Amino acid sequence: MDGIAMIDAKEYLKKTSAELDGPIKSYIGDEEPANLMESSRQYPYAGGKRMRPAMAVACCGAVGGDKSKAVPLAVAIEYIHNFTLIHDDLMDGDEVRRGMPTIHMGYGMPTAILAGDALFAKAYQIMCELDIPAERMREVLRYVSKAVWDLARGQQMDVNNEGKIVTEEYYTETIKLKTSVLFAAAAAGGAIIGGADDETVKAINEYALEVGLGFQMWDDYLGIAGDSSKTGKSVGNDIRKGKCTCMVTHAIRSIQDPAILEEFKGILGNMDATDEQCARAKQIMEEAGSIEYALDLAKGKIESAIDRIKDLPEGEDKEFLISLARYSIDREV
Amino acid sequence: MDGIAMIDAKEYLKKTSAELDGPIKSYIGDEEPANLMESSRQYPYAGGKRMRPAMAVACCGAVGGDKSKAVPLAVAIEYIHNFTLIHDDLMDGDEVRRGMPTIHMGYGMPTAILAGDALFAKAYQIMCELDIPAERMREVLRYVSKAVWDLARGQQMDVNNEGKIVTEEYYTETIKLKTSVLFAAAAAGGAIIGGADDETVKAINEYALEVGLGFQMWDDYLGIAGDSSKTGKSVGNDIRKGKCTCMVTHAIRSIQDPAILEEFKGILGNMDATDEQCARAKQIMEEAGSIEYALDLAKGKIESAIDRIKDLPEGEDKEFLISLARYSIDREV
Repeated sequence: MDGIAMIDAKEYLKKTSAELDGPIKSYIGDEEPANLMESSRQYPYAGGKRMRPAMAVACCGAVGGDKSKAVPLAVAIEYIHNFTLIHDDLMDGDEVRRGMPTIHMGYGMPTAILAGDALFAKAYQIMCELDIPAERMREVLRYVSKAVWDLARGQQMDVNNEGKIVTEEYYTETIKLKTSVLFAAAAAGGAIIGGADDETVKAINEYALEVGLGFQMWDDYLGIAGDSSKTGKSVGNDIRKGKCTCMVTHAIRSIQDPAILEEFKGILGNMDATDEQCARAKQIMEEAGSIEYALDLAKGKIESAIDRIKDLPEGEDKEFLISLARYSIDREV
Repeated sequence: MDGIAMIDAKEYLKKTSAELDGPIKSYIGDEEPANLMESSRQYPYAGGKRMRPAMAVACCGAVGGDKSKAVPLAVAIEYIHNFTLIHDDLMDGDEVRRGMPTIHMGYGMPTAILAGDALFAKAYQIMCELDIPAERMREVLRYVSKAVWDLARGQQMDVNNEGKIVTEEYYTETIKLKTSVLFAAAAAGGAIIGGADDETVKAINEYALEVGLGFQMWDDYLGIAGDSSKTGKSVGNDIRKGKCTCMVTHAIRSIQDPAILEEFKGILGNMDATDEQCARAKQIMEEAGSIEYALDLAKGKIESAIDRIKDLPEGEDKEFLISLARYSIDREV
């Protein structure tokens, strides 16, 4: 591992999130009808880590570009991320996000569908006005449009996987499509806006793909071992839902004792499992080395991500990208 | 009215719809997961009038462009139209379209949301590859992205209007956003691809906006006076839903007798209204001159549309555009 990341990613993210607040709140005007404007604003205006837009801006800077030119892309990516959150919450029947009722709870199902669609369209309106040569804009849009297509695929695979045991390979493909591709489009898009050559864009794209994988694997870990008072997710939720994470796929293929395997499978996906049973399932995975295995997998992705950008010139933006990669598997929330 | 349209729009549409069948079926490959691919294909592959894509191609030809270059845009517009249909059917709870179960009925709600999102993304993937200078592609995308934003607004206004008496102006704005803007983006996009100058693009855009208004007004007329065995819509449906069309707004402001106005308002929006009551509501609108008024309004839009493109060079494509405008208020379905 070369270089020492001196930037505190969490603090830096707070700063960039605050800097992006103005731009994020500047694109949805007071058009008719008011309930569509309000509902499309709710999620992106509410804050959050804003990792994707921060990545877009930093990747532009890391290749020597004018970071201000990547800000509209950052906003567009955040709108797209939030469009998928609105639709996901509706599909999953989730009732609360960021301390507020989800859009379908607050405004009804039709408005949730339309607020998502509207944010998606607005993202493209914003990207059409990127202040870069049109040929480069075309290239940015290629990455982003492919990402949204893949996102829908990943989300559908996630829906299809529910309650099933899939392979680690299939699970990894699912989270790549569901999570990594939008990180990757943000990063590649930022680099393209910054004027990077094809090889650099490719390296940055791969960096973000790996970060996305590590990020999601860490999310899965927090779902099992995180502090539920911080994550806001009840521990055991993923076990009851039978979410087939890398920890679960490892346990299934590694548990030697048929009785324990049977016990594990009996808890997994059982919506009525008690907290004690969920704790037992976690213990079984611990004893099978599955949690350590998944953490090593996540660490590997992050080290690999950092390796992809080793040739970028040294500087604050590169440092942040390295630090952000490590933070993605070292956060409590 | 200058020129005699010699082209039979209905026949010509059949021909162009058949020609577009191959391209429309060529962009969604056999990727994972299969249920998302199948569900996103279902509507666009099933046919339909395909007026919007036909308009895109004809507008390209009408300005002297290479029509084959507008085919990908035509496909993208049709995908966007079908994405909105999938989401609309879900919002409206409609169970059948084109003789098949709607997507949410056949595949469930999450897949209906995702199939719509996927078609939307695919449309942009297609448009990124338009074989025209990038600066022109940017201009096409501006029109299309603005249209989808407006579509969501129009759809939300439609949801909000339900069961309310709105003004004719507000209703016209609603159908403009809900229907016309996508026609207009198809037409303007085709003209841009064909190499038209700004003034011509603007004229063609306005032509299609007016055609869209006339088209929707005629749709409303068919909902009241059409042959339900052909339209597939039960006569009285719009009356029971209280749909505030231009016929209704005219009746409300024109009926002099307070007793008849009361009777009319009592039927409108009454989901339990009998067929006899719906027929009575229609009779009241007839006697108030409201149906004639709305038809005149639609005719005016179409004549105005045709007037916008009078300066285009004569030829088959211009003839089709004129004929298509007239057909949009002279069809049985």
